[in-house]
Amino acid sequence: MLPAKSLAWGQSKSCIRELAAYGSARKTEIGAENVFDFSIGNPSVPAPACVDKALRELLSGDSLAVHSYTAAVGLPGLRRAVAEDLRARCGVPFEPEMVYVTCGAAAGLASCARALMQPGEEAIAFAPFFPEYRVFVEGAGGVLVTVPPTEALLPDLDALEQALSEKTALVIVNTPNNPSGVILTADCLRRLGQILSDAQQRFGHPIYLLSDEPYRELVYDGQAVPCVADFYDNSVICYSFSKSLSLPGERIGYLAVGPRMEDRQAVFSAIAGAARASGYVNAPSLMQRVIERCIGATSDVSVYRRNRDLLLEGLTACGFTCVPPDGAFYLFMRAPESDAKAFSERAKKHELLLVPSDDFGLGGYVRIAYCVSEDTIRRSLPAFRALAEEYGLC
Amino acid sequence: MLPAKSLAWGQSKSCIRELAAYGSARKTEIGAENVFDFSIGNPSVPAPACVDKALRELLSGDSLAVHSYTAAVGLPGLRRAVAEDLRARCGVPFEPEMVYVTCGAAAGLASCARALMQPGEEAIAFAPFFPEYRVFVEGAGGVLVTVPPTEALLPDLDALEQALSEKTALVIVNTPNNPSGVILTADCLRRLGQILSDAQQRFGHPIYLLSDEPYRELVYDGQAVPCVADFYDNSVICYSFSKSLSLPGERIGYLAVGPRMEDRQAVFSAIAGAARASGYVNAPSLMQRVIERCIGATSDVSVYRRNRDLLLEGLTACGFTCVPPDGAFYLFMRAPESDAKAFSERAKKHELLLVPSDDFGLGGYVRIAYCVSEDTIRRSLPAFRALAEEYGLC
Repeated sequence: MLPAKSLAWGQSKSCIRELAAYGSARKTEIGAENVFDFSIGNPSVPAPACVDKALRELLSGDSLAVHSYTAAVGLPGLRRAVAEDLRARCGVPFEPEMVYVTCGAAAGLASCARALMQPGEEAIAFAPFFPEYRVFVEGAGGVLVTVPPTEALLPDLDALEQALSEKTALVIVNTPNNPSGVILTADCLRRLGQILSDAQQRFGHPIYLLSDEPYRELVYDGQAVPCVADFYDNSVICYSFSKSLSLPGERIGYLAVGPRMEDRQAVFSAIAGAARASGYVNAPSLMQRVIERCIGATSDVSVYRRNRDLLLEGLTACGFTCVPPDGAFYLFMRAPESDAKAFSERAKKHELLLVPSDDFGLGGYVRIAYCVSEDTIRRSLPAFRALAEEYGLC
Repeated sequence: MLPAKSLAWGQSKSCIRELAAYGSARKTEIGAENVFDFSIGNPSVPAPACVDKALRELLSGDSLAVHSYTAAVGLPGLRRAVAEDLRARCGVPFEPEMVYVTCGAAAGLASCARALMQPGEEAIAFAPFFPEYRVFVEGAGGVLVTVPPTEALLPDLDALEQALSEKTALVIVNTPNNPSGVILTADCLRRLGQILSDAQQRFGHPIYLLSDEPYRELVYDGQAVPCVADFYDNSVICYSFSKSLSLPGERIGYLAVGPRMEDRQAVFSAIAGAARASGYVNAPSLMQRVIERCIGATSDVSVYRRNRDLLLEGLTACGFTCVPPDGAFYLFMRAPESDAKAFSERAKKHELLLVPSDDFGLGGYVRIAYCVSEDTIRRSLPAFRALAEEYGLC
């Protein structure tokens, strides 16, 4: 008898991956230029020049040193660089000793779930949320409790107060949000911090706040992403360089335990132990050394901003209703019928691949990943118009 | 309350890592050339030229393509290359669809443990064994049952028959073995296969055999490593390119489910699901592409063979008793007192860093990692002689 949960996670298809696979097949059938594939969040802007420069320099050096094991927690220089970068960004005194270099944000989130909750305990996520949170939480033996959003797609904090219980061990936020592009405001985080502090006191045990932040640098119009650790002591930041440095396949990121967390030594040890039990030895060594040299750099975000503006304007002109995204490279658009899956199917007839929002814990929307070429966006607009006309929107 | 097991795994120190850390500090104190550091299994032979060539070619290509996500199971071309390589090596018809590209062998082993055993079930390992097996098995909620070796340090198969129970879900072997360098013979695997087949029938459920094989290409004197899947249908091979291509920090390897396993589709899905719940997204993409181009290549193994011969001859001449290793880059030497830890401490006084065998599940030996320069070995021999004299061995 194989464990039923592992089997289910292995057999269930991600809606995003399925649509992307459909897209690949369709491109072979009718030509790539005729499919408007907005399914997957693969960066479309190349890694910045410093990444290539660092790779070339490293490969001219000592092969044994470059490819050798590192400490499980990561290279000392990289941990220092990350802590300094975080301090400079948000003024919170993050410590190198509390930085763990991970194989992307997913590894950090899954290890935190295994480390910070007991079987049967609850983790709260705010819809719309990245579908893998459920797998990580249930993989740790926990239960995912979901909270619906406000009209503006921010966390509904009144609903959070109802959802908190003495079983709550974790709360997960994602800022800027995938799939909505919404950034959690300082006001929202302040009240969230207050609610969680009160709940800790009421229930007599810590509640840890995990902040998933792979899109932190992909923000527009001078927006800033407020730092959770500035508003709540029991915070852990999970980060990935996948999007900011356009390295999604390389699996390199970090987690940073908040410097004001009371039991941070034990929390850090438990996370390290959970990662060890999952078979993590160290994050890829060549990439650790690359990031050490490129910390603070980002891909050219202006490309995504142009895409966003073009798409937002084009769709609004057709009569669609969109959530104007402040960050990330996703546009969250209201489906003009209540069944988002049916709308996504109808869009396919126009060769538009849009991810229905149901898997993100919220019905009635589609996610449009605009990390594509500007040309693809321009050429897709007549298809969007034809789709809008079917629904009588224009 | 943090989960006690995660905390313990995070807080417990690996004996190997502790000795290596002592070595680093000691080198700073008295000069690197004066410390004979045989503690850790970091390859000392650089990656073969094809690795560097592949890296340079890939970096001249399209940055977005090179660093993009791959399917969770790995690149199709790499999966095909691995299956072909395995077929050529051992004549067993491995299928590309049953190859999962992993972040090293540890990721494969940990994911198999989570996928193939229910909480409370047992995994059997043969002493001496790699200490992390215990963490992977207990991490999956299982219990590690250990079986002592024969005089020749092969698995004691009579003892295995006693250890098997209806709770047995997994059996783990490691060939060539870390720490002993012993290769499991065809005779041993044949009888092991027969015993496990009988036990499956007796208990009415499958027992999966995991074979951990990162040292498969590091063999000497024309030895071959018989393939477990040739002797037992319910086998999974866990492999890493860490040692054969000298890339330990890059975390790249694979697992391959045996082509004659009856429920292999479900087993493969469960492993994929367990990996997903642990936060694995895909193995590092640049390295996947490197391996695709370098499959079948190995670092220069003759360097390790010279080291082995030099060390084995030198230690035997001093009066020490060693297990002549057929593979890997470890020499397993009998401690001349029953307490291996005490012997290791005594060796430190001669600046010799030898790992006591207790953490490998067997007392009375030390592991000498001879993946060092030939010069280090030559210069260490007088220290070994002085140590032998203390024990009256010469």
